[in-house]
Amino acid sequence: MSEEERRHKVRTAKHKKVVDARIAAARIDKGLVLVLTGNGKGKSSSAFGMVARTLGYGRKAAVFQFIKGKEDVGERAFLSRQDGVTWENCGEGFTWETQNRARDIAAARAGWEKARAALSDPDISLVVLDELTYLVTYRYLELDEILPAIRGRPAMQHVVITGRAAHEELVELADTVSAIRDEKHAFRAGVRAQVGIDL
Amino acid sequence: MSEEERRHKVRTAKHKKVVDARIAAARIDKGLVLVLTGNGKGKSSSAFGMVARTLGYGRKAAVFQFIKGKEDVGERAFLSRQDGVTWENCGEGFTWETQNRARDIAAARAGWEKARAALSDPDISLVVLDELTYLVTYRYLELDEILPAIRGRPAMQHVVITGRAAHEELVELADTVSAIRDEKHAFRAGVRAQVGIDL
Repeated sequence: MSEEERRHKVRTAKHKKVVDARIAAARIDKGLVLVLTGNGKGKSSSAFGMVARTLGYGRKAAVFQFIKGKEDVGERAFLSRQDGVTWENCGEGFTWETQNRARDIAAARAGWEKARAALSDPDISLVVLDELTYLVTYRYLELDEILPAIRGRPAMQHVVITGRAAHEELVELADTVSAIRDEKHAFRAGVRAQVGIDL
Repeated sequence: MSEEERRHKVRTAKHKKVVDARIAAARIDKGLVLVLTGNGKGKSSSAFGMVARTLGYGRKAAVFQFIKGKEDVGERAFLSRQDGVTWENCGEGFTWETQNRARDIAAARAGWEKARAALSDPDISLVVLDELTYLVTYRYLELDEILPAIRGRPAMQHVVITGRAAHEELVELADTVSAIRDEKHAFRAGVRAQVGIDL
């Protein structure tokens, strides 16, 4: 064994001890609340990745897309046809698309009622509330309705909430919060939304 | 129409103009390089979400997991059995797991050779180089090998690179860079990796 290899072995063995101790200390199993926020690309994609993970164990996932319209984007085309996935498009686009506040509110409320049902169904392992934060920002839904439904869900159910500017109360309730910073975006260089990436 | 509704209509119509103009200005279609970096949860999940999107259009994706070992995690169980997906586990764990630098380097190089082949195959719409940054950090692979292969790929092929501490050269090459900040993580509260979320 070379000197470099020996040093590598000593260093990594030491590191392994630290990592193993930390992993051994984490013994709790529970349903998690994850918040994916910030302006960067990857919030909803990440939620869909967790849907794929869930399906890998033969478990069920329910996805509620609160803003996205009826357009048949890739994630919907692929995931909504999988066994074990419930998929609800609950919106018709951003406020500036629909320009009809009363209709937006009605769509949000109808979607939320379905999400609330999923949040009380222990057969559903993962509930994705995609772009939920906008509903709170626009005051289509009150946190006073959302928080108790999430808190009261089945003990092992995971919830993923996406959207910019997540509210303090959501961050507080969450077990894991990732803030995705937009360091660079192809759109600003004139590239439109690309199939398989943004759609 | 109430005064509030009228104001909403005026405001959203104005906003729509701005958004529409920006969208109209973005007309380029091209294969993108995305870098998902930072310490927060969601980098690989996001890449897998883009695999799902790609499959929604009947397109092909190739995934190279450079660090993750042989364990049958959810994303692999589900996505690797889909038509149109090539899945390669090219590592046996982090350095502190394997403790064998020579074997790690050999695994990285073998994985990279397969990835390089995918990066020259125009039939593959999306190439995921999961946890590639660590290979550069550990000096298992040189950027001088990686960058030309990515630059020389088919014009419409997308590449997603994940991993902490993405190198400046990768950030520069990328069209879109998201830095995922770890604001809160269940692990620090004693929760171990959860099925469907982390695994």
